Amino acid sequence: MVADSSDTSALFGAIGGVIPPICTPLTPDRRLDLDSLRSLRTHLIGQGVSGIFALGTMGEGHYLTPSQSTTVVETLAAEKGPEPLLVGIVEPTTPRVLEGIDRLVSEQVDGIVVTGPFYANVSEPEILRHFELVAKHSPVPVLAYNMPSNTGYALTAHNMIELLAEDLIVGIKDSSLDLTNLRRVTVEVPNVDKKLIFTGSDTLLDCALDIGANGAVTGLSNIAADYFVAAMAAHAGDRRIDLSRILRVLNILVQVYVPTEVERGPNSTAIGALKSALVEQGIIASDALSEPMTPVTEGRREHVRSVLAEARQLVDMAESQGLAS
Amino acid sequence: MVADSSDTSALFGAIGGVIPPICTPLTPDRRLDLDSLRSLRTHLIGQGVSGIFALGTMGEGHYLTPSQSTTVVETLAAEKGPEPLLVGIVEPTTPRVLEGIDRLVSEQVDGIVVTGPFYANVSEPEILRHFELVAKHSPVPVLAYNMPSNTGYALTAHNMIELLAEDLIVGIKDSSLDLTNLRRVTVEVPNVDKKLIFTGSDTLLDCALDIGANGAVTGLSNIAADYFVAAMAAHAGDRRIDLSRILRVLNILVQVYVPTEVERGPNSTAIGALKSALVEQGIIASDALSEPMTPVTEGRREHVRSVLAEARQLVDMAESQGLAS
Amino acid sequence: MVADSSDTSALFGAIGGVIPPICTPLTPDRRLDLDSLRSLRTHLIGQGVSGIFALGTMGEGHYLTPSQSTTVVETLAAEKGPEPLLVGIVEPTTPRVLEGIDRLVSEQVDGIVVTGPFYANVSEPEILRHFELVAKHSPVPVLAYNMPSNTGYALTAHNMIELLAEDLIVGIKDSSLDLTNLRRVTVEVPNVDKKLIFTGSDTLLDCALDIGANGAVTGLSNIAADYFVAAMAAHAGDRRIDLSRILRVLNILVQVYVPTEVERGPNSTAIGALKSALVEQGIIASDALSEPMTPVTEGRREHVRSVLAEARQLVDMAESQGLAS
Amino acid sequence: MVADSSDTSALFGAIGGVIPPICTPLTPDRRLDLDSLRSLRTHLIGQGVSGIFALGTMGEGHYLTPSQSTTVVETLAAEKGPEPLLVGIVEPTTPRVLEGIDRLVSEQVDGIVVTGPFYANVSEPEILRHFELVAKHSPVPVLAYNMPSNTGYALTAHNMIELLAEDLIVGIKDSSLDLTNLRRVTVEVPNVDKKLIFTGSDTLLDCALDIGANGAVTGLSNIAADYFVAAMAAHAGDRRIDLSRILRVLNILVQVYVPTEVERGPNSTAIGALKSALVEQGIIASDALSEPMTPVTEGRREHVRSVLAEARQLVDMAESQGLAS
Repeated sequence: MVADSSDTSALFGAIGGVIPPICTPLTPDRRLDLDSLRSLRTHLIGQGVSGIFALGTMGEGHYLTPSQSTTVVETLAAEKGPEPLLVGIVEPTTPRVLEGIDRLVSEQVDGIVVTGPFYANVSEPEILRHFELVAKHSPVPVLAYNMPSNTGYALTAHNMIELLAEDLIVGIKDSSLDLTNLRRVTVEVPNVDKKLIFTGSDTLLDCALDIGANGAVTGLSNIAADYFVAAMAAHAGDRRIDLSRILRVLNILVQVYVPTEVERGPNSTAIGALKSALVEQGIIASDALSEPMTPVTEGRREHVRSVLAEARQLVDMAESQGLAS
Repeated sequence: MVADSSDTSALFGAIGGVIPPICTPLTPDRRLDLDSLRSLRTHLIGQGVSGIFALGTMGEGHYLTPSQSTTVVETLAAEKGPEPLLVGIVEPTTPRVLEGIDRLVSEQVDGIVVTGPFYANVSEPEILRHFELVAKHSPVPVLAYNMPSNTGYALTAHNMIELLAEDLIVGIKDSSLDLTNLRRVTVEVPNVDKKLIFTGSDTLLDCALDIGANGAVTGLSNIAADYFVAAMAAHAGDRRIDLSRILRVLNILVQVYVPTEVERGPNSTAIGALKSALVEQGIIASDALSEPMTPVTEGRREHVRSVLAEARQLVDMAESQGLAS
Repeated sequence: MVADSSDTSALFGAIGGVIPPICTPLTPDRRLDLDSLRSLRTHLIGQGVSGIFALGTMGEGHYLTPSQSTTVVETLAAEKGPEPLLVGIVEPTTPRVLEGIDRLVSEQVDGIVVTGPFYANVSEPEILRHFELVAKHSPVPVLAYNMPSNTGYALTAHNMIELLAEDLIVGIKDSSLDLTNLRRVTVEVPNVDKKLIFTGSDTLLDCALDIGANGAVTGLSNIAADYFVAAMAAHAGDRRIDLSRILRVLNILVQVYVPTEVERGPNSTAIGALKSALVEQGIIASDALSEPMTPVTEGRREHVRSVLAEARQLVDMAESQGLAS
Repeated sequence: MVADSSDTSALFGAIGGVIPPICTPLTPDRRLDLDSLRSLRTHLIGQGVSGIFALGTMGEGHYLTPSQSTTVVETLAAEKGPEPLLVGIVEPTTPRVLEGIDRLVSEQVDGIVVTGPFYANVSEPEILRHFELVAKHSPVPVLAYNMPSNTGYALTAHNMIELLAEDLIVGIKDSSLDLTNLRRVTVEVPNVDKKLIFTGSDTLLDCALDIGANGAVTGLSNIAADYFVAAMAAHAGDRRIDLSRILRVLNILVQVYVPTEVERGPNSTAIGALKSALVEQGIIASDALSEPMTPVTEGRREHVRSVLAEARQLVDMAESQGLAS
């Protein structure tokens, strides 16, 4: 459906804030670990997140089979409280996205997050057409997922502005590193404060919020949701010093991603680090990764542990100096 | 399964030659047009092709929903004669490819063609691992599909050589434009003449054959299979002058792809040109394209007609001068 | 020379702030127009800039012949007041940069801005080595010029951090669009507030300053230096509302760059827009561009005029509402 | 000047064949080693090359200072016999190329080889304009240098065809890996056999010749000019078996380039391998490389020696079996 503006406002009221792209825990033999998934969801909700985003890139959405994807969404839907549930539908072309919508969107799903086509060599107008068709088909509001590192191209400011201005989408999740486009969007879209402008950046949260983003959908919020929640509150209250202290912690935590091994791709580095930290924090049972990602090694785990320890040290020091987290 | 060398030889004996990546005809409202699909298959077999490749890029494999893909394969399987049927399984990650294999490979399927992971930021060793896992899972021989324009990266010579040398794959379909890698593969792989080395290039067939390719899986063979068959025969018989005459025709025909409109992406340009030519030749009923590809315009159809006419003229002239096709 | 920290501080004290990459005015037959160059320099100094950067990308440094480059630097050096003069030395490899230093650096030159190698396929360690050799050779402090849109690659955070931490360079000019790297640099470099961290972004000035940049070397400051100066003052004084008003003007002005013609490359679009606006403002005589850039058309001039008018309107409105610039 | 067709023919008659992009030997402290340069030139002429190409990419043209470039050209000009001397003028923009022409082209220079602009973000029509201006300015014939790995983009078939068809350039040196464009050029340019179509590929010589190339300007011809000369003769005489035997040797020799160390960029890998082989063959004195290329290590030298030995072994074996070279 084409979302009307009242819907948009309602959704916006509900889901501004931190929406983790929830990891999908697996057993060591790579089956879904639904107990760990529920545990992670409960943990995140407890940390004050505003919603849950299932089947994003950090959620290994593109690795799961159709039936696994359905199970993940059903599991999260069954646990659902008042907080919105967003679902990523990452498929190469329009017909496949429409099929994914029909399969995955139930009454418990509050919105979907959809990339532009990939593996398809489409043009800028064809990308626009893709989102128009998705918007017309979807029974729930649509967010455009700007993910150049994976699709191979960035959504243009022109396309994002057009889709937002015409209420075909209710928001964007911007995981590009180029804030120039985000600025153009927030400058040029009318009533942009009524749209969902989510940043996917782990380290530029403050900049994105200054530019006009009103939400954070960042991989790191799987393991530090409380810090992201606190950072957004500090920004909203214009407590710049608090904000800067929290960002300092996040800037340490982000080093869990720092690659030290050539044979490992960016996906396995990032998702492996998050899962490994979640195991370390006692929230999920295993850091197993979907194939063909290189399994997490003991060396990577050690690195993650040392980064977590360094972050904890900084927090302890700050607290002993009286910083209210 | 890991194909053993006797299997490979058998398959090779059967399917060296021209294997069109068969277009998937659609009705004007974009449902499968199975009558046209059968008609196209019959036409191609009649032109002497050695096999059929379903669900490739030109077959809009990445646009079809799972159930549409199944129907296409079943339809072609039902018609199948002695010629092999290859099926493309184009999915972003290993678990999805394995799921696709389970869904699409039946007794009538003789081999599968699989790309490296995409939308997944994997490393070179992870790409190798992907193919190893696919090979272990597949009940039929596997060909690696080198498709850098769509996946965003080329399979390395190292990975292709490793997979071929260890009999994990029985061949490659090389749709890169870089023949340097193909040369390295044919120079370094032991018994490479027992492998299936398919080129996807419409215009470099002679070079690819000289380098050691033994098959052509080219988009253009949908509309000019007889010329590709004749070209391969001329090359095999070392009839260089005949070969050069045939290539001249193909070099005209390839201009059906020449883009003249900015709003159209490469996929819709290429697939639209092929379908439009097939309609013009009376083989399929409509040149409708999957969404979000820009529909073929009358202007494009006119262009395709004029290219076909130019090619026909050249052929007539040659025939009047006594060229045995 | 390897700048010692006292030098660095001195330079820093002098040149924090707005340093326009000054355009190089040409006559209609593409000879240097030194009168216009002096006029532009005087205008910029009058608007409160902290220094002048000659021969940058917007200064067509890579289009000028060696003798023209020398003339530009000599002309600016002759006019020089207390404000520092930086000179861009944009050459593909180390020996050519060293030659450029010997040719262009005189007593009046306070620092040089140097890119990594280009047209040279070098590795990350070789890029580091390049800057080390440049630093050892240069009699004046060196800034590293991060310019991925032109060199084809971004300087890595690792290399920038290493060079800054070891005092081989005194700062960076970051014209990448990726603030992630800039954040890593400001987080990880010790005493980063003693370094020159210049952003090249026309539209992300506030973000860059929040991250820790202390200067702006932006193309748009050729035509709106006063706004950049005011923006930096507003940021320094934590006057967020003033800052946001000024940025609104800059976000309109940046639309002089918006491309509307396919035949024109990004260089001619951007430099043409700046020169055209400077002609419109009565500061330089001609908007002629170096070859092979497409000449500015009357249509582009009209576009520039309308953007300037829109920005002026916004300013007038703000002033009538009592905004202290 | 715009070369007229009689000139073109004359030049063509003279320089079809193998034209090595001659290495520029340096002393261990990186000064020009003119004795080694003369020795290398004499050696190459003795092996039957048809001309010499100075200041190409393998000749470190982009590393040499203006005065060094002049010295290299003067030295080769002084030695010149009847064979043509081509000079590479690799500069980022039109004015700099024109300056280079004025500086480097003397009576002994028979043609220049010029890339499209780089570090300049130009459009396709601006690239065309660049070559038009260069052609008008140059007193000697111009070849377009298609070098995507270094400039960041490939010359389009459209531009190459236009420039050749209008006699603005007399030929191209194609160092792209994409033979598709080369094919389009040879198919669409009228009288293409009167143009100079040089391939820069070390391993696809046979394909390029089949497509219509009439010359080889390949890095490897610095160390194996005799094989390239023999290969071209075998191709011209349609001695396919001889050709294939020679190519087998070249396919071994090309492994001197195979990278085994991550810290080394492609430039230093390739040029270092050639210089190291030339030292090994006793033709030049040192394998020193321009900065910032990583110096050749003993490990690399060992690798080069083993490749040379393997190639020699194959040749000896072939000779003992009676292969006429």
